[in-house]
Amino acid sequence: MTGRNEITAIASRARDAAAEMSRADSGAKNQALLEMAKGLRDRMEEIIDRNALDVADAKKKGQTKALIDRLTLNQARIEEMAAGLEEVVALPDPVGEITGMWRRPNGLMVGQMRIPLGVILLIYEARPNVTADAAGLCVKSGNAVILRGGSESLRSNLAIGEALREALTRVDLPEDAVQVVPIADRAAIDTLLTLDELIDLVIPRGGEGLIRRVVEKSRIPVLKHYKGVCHVFVDASANTKMAIDICFNAKVQRPGVCNAMETLLVHKDIAKKFLPRMAEAYEKTGVELRGCTETRKILPKAKKATEKDWPEEYLDLILAVKVVESIEEAMDHIRKYGSSHTESIVTENYANAQRFLREVQSSTVIVNASTRFSDGGQMGLGAEIGISTTRLHAYGPMGLESLTAKKFIIYGDGQVRK
Amino acid sequence: MTGRNEITAIASRARDAAAEMSRADSGAKNQALLEMAKGLRDRMEEIIDRNALDVADAKKKGQTKALIDRLTLNQARIEEMAAGLEEVVALPDPVGEITGMWRRPNGLMVGQMRIPLGVILLIYEARPNVTADAAGLCVKSGNAVILRGGSESLRSNLAIGEALREALTRVDLPEDAVQVVPIADRAAIDTLLTLDELIDLVIPRGGEGLIRRVVEKSRIPVLKHYKGVCHVFVDASANTKMAIDICFNAKVQRPGVCNAMETLLVHKDIAKKFLPRMAEAYEKTGVELRGCTETRKILPKAKKATEKDWPEEYLDLILAVKVVESIEEAMDHIRKYGSSHTESIVTENYANAQRFLREVQSSTVIVNASTRFSDGGQMGLGAEIGISTTRLHAYGPMGLESLTAKKFIIYGDGQVRK
Repeated sequence: MTGRNEITAIASRARDAAAEMSRADSGAKNQALLEMAKGLRDRMEEIIDRNALDVADAKKKGQTKALIDRLTLNQARIEEMAAGLEEVVALPDPVGEITGMWRRPNGLMVGQMRIPLGVILLIYEARPNVTADAAGLCVKSGNAVILRGGSESLRSNLAIGEALREALTRVDLPEDAVQVVPIADRAAIDTLLTLDELIDLVIPRGGEGLIRRVVEKSRIPVLKHYKGVCHVFVDASANTKMAIDICFNAKVQRPGVCNAMETLLVHKDIAKKFLPRMAEAYEKTGVELRGCTETRKILPKAKKATEKDWPEEYLDLILAVKVVESIEEAMDHIRKYGSSHTESIVTENYANAQRFLREVQSSTVIVNASTRFSDGGQMGLGAEIGISTTRLHAYGPMGLESLTAKKFIIYGDGQVRK
Repeated sequence: MTGRNEITAIASRARDAAAEMSRADSGAKNQALLEMAKGLRDRMEEIIDRNALDVADAKKKGQTKALIDRLTLNQARIEEMAAGLEEVVALPDPVGEITGMWRRPNGLMVGQMRIPLGVILLIYEARPNVTADAAGLCVKSGNAVILRGGSESLRSNLAIGEALREALTRVDLPEDAVQVVPIADRAAIDTLLTLDELIDLVIPRGGEGLIRRVVEKSRIPVLKHYKGVCHVFVDASANTKMAIDICFNAKVQRPGVCNAMETLLVHKDIAKKFLPRMAEAYEKTGVELRGCTETRKILPKAKKATEKDWPEEYLDLILAVKVVESIEEAMDHIRKYGSSHTESIVTENYANAQRFLREVQSSTVIVNASTRFSDGGQMGLGAEIGISTTRLHAYGPMGLESLTAKKFIIYGDGQVRK
């Protein structure tokens, strides 16, 4: 395969850089982050110039407005990237943390210590800001990262990458801890995904199609979420005002993101009181409701929901609504149609709150707050490298800790095994 | 593919059982373990009879003595399996544990709660005892397990499986939480490994060949270790007597297992004092030494080590020996030739002890004790379902916690996102 050697060389260099990064202390890594921010500011003009070429090509090729908007860099956006890197400095360094230590009967002290994962491959769409954000988190956690953004953003990413790499060398850290894949060709990704001896983890970010292709081809572990079909369950005992506020916020505040609510489940005993007031609030903002038969008895203006609506991620001002008999039916519905992302219950009933928290096995489960809080920053993890809805390694928003492993350490004083 | 529907049906039943198991409380799961132990004892005769058929066939096919020994069940071995299940009762239930909780500025309480992984597929060789051991750990941690042992042990495994399943129904837990794949055909494994929507984790246990085949074919995450090339580094400052005890124990106490030492690294400043006494101890037990040039200057009787010896897992009374210039050279050697399993340093130097613990990135790193302590039971994890040398999800010996994930939980009182 053309480029195979070149791709393998990138991964090998990342592996070597990772060994060096794993030994870097927090001071050096923080200094690198500050230099990376400075590098972006110093090279701002050049980055904008090279980005303009990407944008011009994208326009010529008739790319969507949304893509071109995400692709376009200006002074404000580059400043935002630089500020983001500076914020990572303030986060605690997870590497070296000892998360527990216990004494064995024979006197051995056994514990676990966080270490970097090694080499991370990030695959994303044409969003050049991800290049700097992801590089910052990987440097802070002592990993090396290989960045492969959408081909439309290749020149922008390379320009950003050069600034970041130069910054690393200024603090004597290996520049190959941050590498942008210089090949636009999709075959480059396929090759990278076979290098399981050199790369430890793949994080694909973007649409479901992109992610499915990565999962299909990868021999390296993948952390990802396909979509967010988030539910709010308004229990019989809910405070109606609170339920309306939460459901409004979960659907309307930013409908295009994965932690927005897509299906509203309402207990039959509160439906007649709650739904008309809720529908009134939604109507003012233009939310389209698609209801089950019971819902439509209460809200005749709602469209009819079909079986296709329940697993749907609208990412838009559309909401599926279902009246349920019980908390069990609500949890069964979530298990059947949910995406393991985020679910919230609104209730004043203690037992139901605890039961929902315990039995719903989605990656984030909430009582009496909006699903929109399912976010690394909001939850106090600092910045977020992605969200996982697979239970292996990380489940839910992934912060710096998700980029580490825990090795066992043992302090002895001469013990041998009998 | 023949059997594909049957295999998919097994995995689907496991998925349903897993949902039910995830809600089972510790009392019910412990009761199940006691009943499983009782079931093995009650059906002892039948299990031994069906095992005898497997053993007879294995002999007819000219299988190795070692395989036949591992395959053969008798009263004592079944009693051991039953006692093993009873021991798991005493281990703490990881499910439901809240591993941390913090308060956000807006009043949200955010924490993490352990939940079962879901469906585990265990692939192993002709060791019928693994059938009961693995089932016990999976039941305790609220998972469902699909068991696929070596085809030579199929009848034995099915007999054990029936006893375990019957026990589950006696305590009203789903019998499909424990399933033995009734198809001897290797294609059955290949099919199972494609069912990534139904199975959450694969744990292969056995020889490197078996494990590589599983990794190659699997679309499900795999936790495994290929081999254990464990090192002991005797530092310049080591207590010679302690070094001899540890190195003797690490090589000789049980040479055929993955946490036995395979390569001994000796600092040049202690080599002349340490190696002759060490060699004397080894000689009495018949350990064959294969040394580097420097080693052979001190131990002329040692064979010459070649480049092939450094990455070798002998699993036998053979030891590669290398004299190194420094702790750096020792750590470089481990990085280059090691298998990320277990390494130990013998030293009286505080800084070197801390540095070795911090910089060596193997899954278990030890100061002043034998590598043979790298074992879930010895380290206080309770029973062990396997060892992982991949950093994702689990690294090192895997106890019950490795069979769980952590979901995020949030307690709110009406918060919405601004």
